[in-house]
Amino acid sequence: MKLASLKSARKHGRLVVVSRDQTLAADASMIAPDLLSALECWDTRQPELEEIYSRLNDGTFIGAFAFDPAQCAAPLPCAPQWLDASAFLNHGYLMERAFNTERIPHFETIPVMYQGASDDFHGPMDDMVMASEEYGIDFEGEFGVVVGAIPMGCSPEAAEQQIRLIVQVNDWSLRALGPHEMKTGFGFLQAKPSSSFAPIAVTPDELGDAWANGRVNMHLKVEWNGARFGEPHGREMHYSFGELIAHAARTRTLSAGSVVGSGTVSNQSRAAGSACIAERRVIEIIDEGAAKTPFMQFGDRVRMQAMFDNGDAGPFGVIDQRVVALTKD
Amino acid sequence: MKLASLKSARKHGRLVVVSRDQTLAADASMIAPDLLSALECWDTRQPELEEIYSRLNDGTFIGAFAFDPAQCAAPLPCAPQWLDASAFLNHGYLMERAFNTERIPHFETIPVMYQGASDDFHGPMDDMVMASEEYGIDFEGEFGVVVGAIPMGCSPEAAEQQIRLIVQVNDWSLRALGPHEMKTGFGFLQAKPSSSFAPIAVTPDELGDAWANGRVNMHLKVEWNGARFGEPHGREMHYSFGELIAHAARTRTLSAGSVVGSGTVSNQSRAAGSACIAERRVIEIIDEGAAKTPFMQFGDRVRMQAMFDNGDAGPFGVIDQRVVALTKD
Repeated sequence: MKLASLKSARKHGRLVVVSRDQTLAADASMIAPDLLSALECWDTRQPELEEIYSRLNDGTFIGAFAFDPAQCAAPLPCAPQWLDASAFLNHGYLMERAFNTERIPHFETIPVMYQGASDDFHGPMDDMVMASEEYGIDFEGEFGVVVGAIPMGCSPEAAEQQIRLIVQVNDWSLRALGPHEMKTGFGFLQAKPSSSFAPIAVTPDELGDAWANGRVNMHLKVEWNGARFGEPHGREMHYSFGELIAHAARTRTLSAGSVVGSGTVSNQSRAAGSACIAERRVIEIIDEGAAKTPFMQFGDRVRMQAMFDNGDAGPFGVIDQRVVALTKD
Repeated sequence: MKLASLKSARKHGRLVVVSRDQTLAADASMIAPDLLSALECWDTRQPELEEIYSRLNDGTFIGAFAFDPAQCAAPLPCAPQWLDASAFLNHGYLMERAFNTERIPHFETIPVMYQGASDDFHGPMDDMVMASEEYGIDFEGEFGVVVGAIPMGCSPEAAEQQIRLIVQVNDWSLRALGPHEMKTGFGFLQAKPSSSFAPIAVTPDELGDAWANGRVNMHLKVEWNGARFGEPHGREMHYSFGELIAHAARTRTLSAGSVVGSGTVSNQSRAAGSACIAERRVIEIIDEGAAKTPFMQFGDRVRMQAMFDNGDAGPFGVIDQRVVALTKD
């Protein structure tokens, strides 16, 4: 099943079901006003939403309308928690060299994870307002999962059963602000503006065999100003999403609708390219002695789309955003 | 004005106005179903709530009922963001010695702040469920502010004008988990379970002269299992709340209802005692060569209450909680 949220006067948007081919949408507000409400009563709402999805796909839903990603907010514009890991170890190892920081202790056995803002997630085609080019504006292509209610102390296995939806994320990062915040020990805050999401959140069955081992086994194709930047694959994720959720829930509960991110998708093979600029820059330093790729400038665009191994476009739709300057009133 | 949220089937609770003497409450659900909704339309809702407050205080409100803090959730059980600083430098200096970490760079000129869970704030008398005594269970007495919508790049002066309510917080901490999370650079996550709040959120005018320089100039009286632990004063807060809000909003917006915390209240004078166990332990190490005070055990209680300089009880009511063990299903 494919779900999206159209922008509306309500901060949580308006829930729609999207057809498998992504051409049609159906209003679902008679079932739940928004996706967060649906997730809070998932056991009863999911079958009702699946019924709409089935009728949309076989052409028998009355009142279907054209699906327009440009009208979409993030699937969850406002989520209870946003917990972002760094589960692709290759990315972590490279970033340590980029930031010239010490090796993260127990990086291979204990996930690292920070909590970011979840009250203002951006839609897939929203202009991305940034205060300054001097902050080192970067994108980070990731996968994420939306969970049901997770009790404190949940096991990875039980956590994986509570994965309701899979999403595709651009976790914007400000690289000039990150190293200081890491050195304080308090972690990322200013270095992490609100993240952006592809328009469609999907139930795991939509991925078919690409959802395996608690990982999204797909390429994430990234283009910057129309040029190929990379298409790393999700299979090298060191921790499963079940393990990441369990890590987050060790000492707290997670409310239904919380989102857990994988961290930047990254592969050991240099041929895969990268899903963030910082990683390309450190590869340039290692291979060529100096970083030559700058960070983003105002007016730049970044496009991200997941792809199945057979080359078919993934189910999430496309993130395609432009970076614009903050204008002060 | 004094506001509180009674527990209800709704996750945001039910908004009530509380009389100045904290004996009476009035249902405010005809004005806003919950405090978050009121904050989202504060310009129109505040005068209506103030009218109820005035009538409660002069005895002309029909339908007032006894105010019972035991029925209270946190004033905002579910807030858009929880951003907690460490603005009492004395605490920070001591904690560096406790954790044996390097001096935080620019600690006197750039606030440190982490983002914590804001989807499950605990009420003032809720049992506090913890997974293990081995985690080093500690309390942290703080003050906090609830803000209106804060635009990206807001100045400290403009931010201070958006402070809607002042709150009293117990920012629970798990000391055995903190040092590792600081060393990763990603900051606190497992080390910070959801925080607890005193029952009453107050508009700044309720503090009179004690609200000055963007700081809460009151003692925070802390008792552990009925014994005095400390009563440090808010005046030594190095950054004002306006400065902390502006720091948080440098690269993001804050939705109305976001909560910004001061970090543990701490004074240079040893006579003031402490508002967390970790601080007392490091003082023991410095003064006596070894920590002798253990962290909390299951069954322990902690009580926190703000006090005016003249010895009168503060306007927030009392946090009085017991730590209990997580029971697995």
